[in-house]
Amino acid sequence: MGTLEDMGTLEDKDKHYIWHPFTQMKDWLEEGPLIIKEGRGSFLKDIYGRWYLDGVSSLWATIHGHRKKEIDDAIKEQLEKIGHSTLLGLSNPPAIELAEKLIKIAPKPNPPSPLFAKGGRGGINNSELRTSMGRRPNSELSKVFYSDNGSTAVEISLKIAFQYWQHKGEKGKTRFLSLNNAYHGDTLGAVGVGGIEVFHNIYRPIIIPSLKAPSPYCYRCELDLTYPSCNIECAKELERTTSRHKDEIAALIIEPLVQAAAGMLISPPGYLKEVKRICTENNILMIADEVATGFGRTGKMFACEHEGVCPDIMAIAKGITGGYLPLAATLTTQDIFNSFLGEYKELKTFFHGHTYTGNPLACAAAIANIEFFEKDRTLEKLHERISFLEERLRPFTELPHVGEVRQKGFMVGLELVKDKKTKEPYPLEDKIGIKVILKAREKGLIIRPLGNVIVLMPPLSISIQEIEKMVKITKWAIERVTE
Amino acid sequence: MGTLEDMGTLEDKDKHYIWHPFTQMKDWLEEGPLIIKEGRGSFLKDIYGRWYLDGVSSLWATIHGHRKKEIDDAIKEQLEKIGHSTLLGLSNPPAIELAEKLIKIAPKPNPPSPLFAKGGRGGINNSELRTSMGRRPNSELSKVFYSDNGSTAVEISLKIAFQYWQHKGEKGKTRFLSLNNAYHGDTLGAVGVGGIEVFHNIYRPIIIPSLKAPSPYCYRCELDLTYPSCNIECAKELERTTSRHKDEIAALIIEPLVQAAAGMLISPPGYLKEVKRICTENNILMIADEVATGFGRTGKMFACEHEGVCPDIMAIAKGITGGYLPLAATLTTQDIFNSFLGEYKELKTFFHGHTYTGNPLACAAAIANIEFFEKDRTLEKLHERISFLEERLRPFTELPHVGEVRQKGFMVGLELVKDKKTKEPYPLEDKIGIKVILKAREKGLIIRPLGNVIVLMPPLSISIQEIEKMVKITKWAIERVTE
Repeated sequence: MGTLEDMGTLEDKDKHYIWHPFTQMKDWLEEGPLIIKEGRGSFLKDIYGRWYLDGVSSLWATIHGHRKKEIDDAIKEQLEKIGHSTLLGLSNPPAIELAEKLIKIAPKPNPPSPLFAKGGRGGINNSELRTSMGRRPNSELSKVFYSDNGSTAVEISLKIAFQYWQHKGEKGKTRFLSLNNAYHGDTLGAVGVGGIEVFHNIYRPIIIPSLKAPSPYCYRCELDLTYPSCNIECAKELERTTSRHKDEIAALIIEPLVQAAAGMLISPPGYLKEVKRICTENNILMIADEVATGFGRTGKMFACEHEGVCPDIMAIAKGITGGYLPLAATLTTQDIFNSFLGEYKELKTFFHGHTYTGNPLACAAAIANIEFFEKDRTLEKLHERISFLEERLRPFTELPHVGEVRQKGFMVGLELVKDKKTKEPYPLEDKIGIKVILKAREKGLIIRPLGNVIVLMPPLSISIQEIEKMVKITKWAIERVTE
Repeated sequence: MGTLEDMGTLEDKDKHYIWHPFTQMKDWLEEGPLIIKEGRGSFLKDIYGRWYLDGVSSLWATIHGHRKKEIDDAIKEQLEKIGHSTLLGLSNPPAIELAEKLIKIAPKPNPPSPLFAKGGRGGINNSELRTSMGRRPNSELSKVFYSDNGSTAVEISLKIAFQYWQHKGEKGKTRFLSLNNAYHGDTLGAVGVGGIEVFHNIYRPIIIPSLKAPSPYCYRCELDLTYPSCNIECAKELERTTSRHKDEIAALIIEPLVQAAAGMLISPPGYLKEVKRICTENNILMIADEVATGFGRTGKMFACEHEGVCPDIMAIAKGITGGYLPLAATLTTQDIFNSFLGEYKELKTFFHGHTYTGNPLACAAAIANIEFFEKDRTLEKLHERISFLEERLRPFTELPHVGEVRQKGFMVGLELVKDKKTKEPYPLEDKIGIKVILKAREKGLIIRPLGNVIVLMPPLSISIQEIEKMVKITKWAIERVTE
């Protein structure tokens, strides 16, 4: 690769051989593809040597920046041992060490159980570990089931929740409850609990639909109410549905705090805690899908922590490897795990697994990622950047076509509207989001819209200067396109 | 890691934190876990320094052996550029180059179309590429949609097949046809087309079941017939079901030649070709799930080639990265791809994608894997080893509890039976397969059973001496356990 001809060949070959995800390929084939060859920190370089600021963390995944020495080194070091060994019938050190780290950083009940408080979040020695491991209450997240992406982590969550009740003898609890505007992945089980019409509607004949509750989307409230005078009526509506169907429902699944793929819809304070209470009181499991929100995106390690919520099952992926390699995990309580124990012939086994479950290379990257969080004090340092970003986003509310500015930590959605007063959306055919991001690209910023919502989700390692640049270009692009 | 205490800690932590796939964890917790720390060629080393022969390719994935220099180097080289960049809205060189390679090695119609014959399988120059790319017939596999594991590659296949007919206006074609004993993965869409009772039965309330046809399992023929006098009646039964429901069926999905997870059930010669004919004549798509059979396992690059079959959609994973990293791909014809083209507002887009779709590190490993196939002439060299294995397996048929010896290339299933004459199976609670593999482990061989079937699936790079060792230990273990 080097000559202009080579680059042209790469572009041709892309168009000839690749079917891109979430892409109308007719549009793609009509335009020149942007091919990323290298990265460094918050930046990406294309095959022509042009640099771009990565404003969406290479799809909500990059944490400490590209070419992070600590993660590069961890992968190289693991390569000197073994690339892959299976978790079916065997184990491997990186999968074990990562599982311990994940359980340590997982959301804990608030306040933490006194028995476990001693160990806490920090390092604990082996004898403490043995004690705390033995004593951990059965309702805390304590087991790790690995897979490869958020969608499979969700499928595993759903299957485990369903099977848990079957083992408990509550055979009627076979349905799931999810929210309008939910996105939990693209495999058919995950589509079944999805609620984004544009993505999911066409698949109705081949999915089992879930029960639905209102989306906590205050800007376009389904119940036509206004926060806070609404008293979070959407949670009450959820409670009524849950209570009515509690004998049929195995679990509720939710993206805690932020319905990300629907356009960074942020639930009102107190909503998530209410959801947890409703699940507990109605005897259904709560699945937190932290695939997008996990690993610091909202300002805390997991979004559930903002409201002191500890789910029964938690799905994580994306940022787990620092944005390097596919890896996912489903965390469950000891109580759920215990319900799958039995004699082999009872067939209580969780017959689920993917070839690369617990892949040593991906686990090594994930360990380095989490260790860097501690070493770098990433979450502490993030506060200042989040405040800076918040301040810089304030002027966007004045723009004539920005309907709402939504931010939770480093997850930002700028909803563009045709008419600010009536909140009339731009029609699909205007492709307003796509136009804005292509305009931003001219100035060296890579972002990606969700319909009419412009998303900003930079790496956690982005500098103050780079935030300034990202916001400035975004504002310029929105003004240009919507003027 | 180094002291005995450290190792004990690793074992404890495994039991405390990890939920292993396809494992009855009650049994696991009662035994000491075998923890693999390193690998080299056909061998795995545990944390105590003991070496084992890897008789199942670290779950049917390792191709050229562990710590393959060419693949290690490719991953390290890619790390110097970038770990991950997204295929949503962008592209990257490794994903492009791999897509081209996959299309080149994909099964072709037999005989190949004269227009494409010139390019053939070998290297072709750019001008030939441009020509051939433009002219490739619409019924050949020509587009690559990436994902992370076999299960997602299957989900993508199913969704694409369903949506294809929706776009074509054949709204009634919403069902899938699959075989008894099929295994296509563990996400709920894949479970819907599964047919292994032990794995799939419990999920009935949360899946949409597929139409089913008989399994081509001659040793226990569902139709009580005997090959070849049966005239492959199971295919005729499949034809009747297909023909009866052709207006409802979007696609048939099949593991070509070998139903692997069901116990390496090998279909009779001619069966696959018949399946293809039936699909074509009844206007339904054929999906080949080559996740287990692909990348040389059956002696050819893909199992479909044994019968000159070119499917409409093909799912691949496992061996694609040489057994290093999670990566999968769904290949489709140009005709199918074209049906998804349209204006954005028509919503014909395939709204599916995973964060690490086309991950550069995994694609770099896959490129190195495929290049080594060529450089090493792996498939040519395999013939001798396959014949040697076949010869060494012959004495197994004499063992009093081996009901059938099944082999297709490097995929071997040895079905153990309680009574050879009546074919009475061992009951589940005997755990006969588990006992045999634990016995084999004592002599340094790692294998993994499928129920009562002992599976041998070594890396393609295994030497004649290592085959000898693998077969010898296996025979010894079966004799010991079943005597």
